[in-house]
Amino acid sequence: MQKPYELLEKIRKEKPLVHHITNWVTIAGCADITRALGALPIMAHAREEVEEMAGISSALVLNIGTLTSELVDAMELAARKANARGIPVILDCVGAGATKMRTDACRRLIGNVKIDVVKGNAGEIGAIAGIEAVVRGVESVSVSGEPREIARDLAARLGCAVVITGKDDIASNGKETFIVSNGHEMMGRVVGTGCMASSCLGAFCAVEKDCAKACACAMAVYGIAGELAAKKAAAPLEFKQGLIDEICSLDGTAMEMARVKIC
Amino acid sequence: MQKPYELLEKIRKEKPLVHHITNWVTIAGCADITRALGALPIMAHAREEVEEMAGISSALVLNIGTLTSELVDAMELAARKANARGIPVILDCVGAGATKMRTDACRRLIGNVKIDVVKGNAGEIGAIAGIEAVVRGVESVSVSGEPREIARDLAARLGCAVVITGKDDIASNGKETFIVSNGHEMMGRVVGTGCMASSCLGAFCAVEKDCAKACACAMAVYGIAGELAAKKAAAPLEFKQGLIDEICSLDGTAMEMARVKIC
Amino acid sequence: MQKPYELLEKIRKEKPLVHHITNWVTIAGCADITRALGALPIMAHAREEVEEMAGISSALVLNIGTLTSELVDAMELAARKANARGIPVILDCVGAGATKMRTDACRRLIGNVKIDVVKGNAGEIGAIAGIEAVVRGVESVSVSGEPREIARDLAARLGCAVVITGKDDIASNGKETFIVSNGHEMMGRVVGTGCMASSCLGAFCAVEKDCAKACACAMAVYGIAGELAAKKAAAPLEFKQGLIDEICSLDGTAMEMARVKIC
Repeated sequence: MQKPYELLEKIRKEKPLVHHITNWVTIAGCADITRALGALPIMAHAREEVEEMAGISSALVLNIGTLTSELVDAMELAARKANARGIPVILDCVGAGATKMRTDACRRLIGNVKIDVVKGNAGEIGAIAGIEAVVRGVESVSVSGEPREIARDLAARLGCAVVITGKDDIASNGKETFIVSNGHEMMGRVVGTGCMASSCLGAFCAVEKDCAKACACAMAVYGIAGELAAKKAAAPLEFKQGLIDEICSLDGTAMEMARVKIC
Repeated sequence: MQKPYELLEKIRKEKPLVHHITNWVTIAGCADITRALGALPIMAHAREEVEEMAGISSALVLNIGTLTSELVDAMELAARKANARGIPVILDCVGAGATKMRTDACRRLIGNVKIDVVKGNAGEIGAIAGIEAVVRGVESVSVSGEPREIARDLAARLGCAVVITGKDDIASNGKETFIVSNGHEMMGRVVGTGCMASSCLGAFCAVEKDCAKACACAMAVYGIAGELAAKKAAAPLEFKQGLIDEICSLDGTAMEMARVKIC
Repeated sequence: MQKPYELLEKIRKEKPLVHHITNWVTIAGCADITRALGALPIMAHAREEVEEMAGISSALVLNIGTLTSELVDAMELAARKANARGIPVILDCVGAGATKMRTDACRRLIGNVKIDVVKGNAGEIGAIAGIEAVVRGVESVSVSGEPREIARDLAARLGCAVVITGKDDIASNGKETFIVSNGHEMMGRVVGTGCMASSCLGAFCAVEKDCAKACACAMAVYGIAGELAAKKAAAPLEFKQGLIDEICSLDGTAMEMARVKIC
């Protein structure tokens, strides 16, 4: 598939501004990877400025990893502005299912504004979908059902794209479902890879209107960087640094490693 | 001492969830090292969810490094829940003695809930104990008295474990006092090693009810990782990355470097 | 110029405490680089303690990168205390010009307290100066006028030092204007280098009362570290780590690379 590399080149050329309202654990990593992709990260969460910042951005990434009620209010304000401007809104449902506050925040945002991409691991997305799921902190423990079906059904129901991360990453808009088989198990062993994936989704959706396709491309690019980084580093932080650094130097040859299929 | 390695293996096997309410400077490092130990970090500080998150966790780490009054309220709520469930609560008294707010926050928490491990450098613990101590920012400048006696006396008075970090690390429950002579002076020259130590305490106390012993083992493991990292890296950030990465690959042979004595 | 190294040695010897009220994206990097310089970072933003913390510090660094109205209130309180004590206050105008809230916050602080160093990129400083400028997120897109003239005029008008970062870094007090030609283009390609520069300004102003000169020395030291790091690393995160690590080991020979001129 040539598409992932085309979009990556488009990001590098257009340098879209990606507005994040995100968590305090991985905020630096999210900024780093956005910049490594060639996009420009801007983190801003004050109620007084989120609309103005969303007003000059090309995508909005919402991440509830260390949410407070004030942050969720700011997310809703920013998303309304993003909706009005037609820029994509990505919601990373970090820890949905682990606490009522997190599940409720996701549902409130999905109910009150248009979310273009709902993203999480199987447990988190299962919790959003109202399926029996167990989430422990931010880890998916179990979910009843096949991730690709859960993604497809929720996407069809919500009328948006749904991304489920895991061994295979899944991106569906309810009609087309992409299965991305890139990535490396090291990505599941370090903190922040899920959040950084959402930054990638934001950057790719900023340059491609078909969100499911954009997300599949993003996950392929991200996964390939992970595979390359894992060849050089076995230790977690060395690997995490490599993952971000590889993103920066990906070329057309590396992109031939993309393993995406549609079903 | 075989014990540190046994506990490390137990953490790797049981993957305890360690709930942190911590500061914004070192939050990523705390998550990283918790994960490197094999445990699962979860950072959550909203009043609305801290009880629920403490309700599914195996240890609670409180760190006042960038405290606000709202955070201290959340810490108290979470700690009450932790107390009710019998999971250990670790309090890192970052900067106690430097400002009244910090000293008061520690005393309030110690007074209102059961803290299982009170941890700090000599100046911070001296300030909590009401001993003459000088703390500059988060640096211990001076304290009147021997750290091991301060630890033992405060532990006996509060009925909990007290950990004082320094050249030797000390863990006391008022009866037994462990002196851990592992570690490397580089650990005092980089930001965040104190906070990451508390994450280690949380993970070890999650799998061993004897908190003083668990803390001594944690500090031995952490110190050994520091010694190994210092062999490979002389520069501070390279060392910090190595410190976390070494934790991940520690084996039984490395653990023979443990230097712990009881007095 | 021998001066930069003299000041660096003074920082290493005196270990000034540098109080930061800063943003959540780069807070760890700011602490790391402050420590790498040999100074001591302290991050504290609660209204209840900022005055006390500023009261024991040798410089105050304010950074509006993820500002809220509460943070700006805290900045003003801390700055008043700093003013009363005669310690330097550095304001990093991150994103001024991008949103009204950011421009207003800078102007409010500049109007209500004495700021000793106003720092930003050309677009940010242009926005503060009321010159036509375009800022996209935290990137300077364009400004009408020559940076060195903007710096000199604004410094003269405000009676403080003004630092404009860019290909050349400029530090002016309205009379003397220093042009620092150190640095490497990689510094513009990674997240956080602007914020870390402000931490350097804080540490240097803590040991040298002539703020424009102190800032010129800081930017020379920082830029040299960037040049050295770029020789060893081409990837962004590897470079960023190297940048901080090089600061730690700079010696008199490296400092001969300083390229500072006065105009």
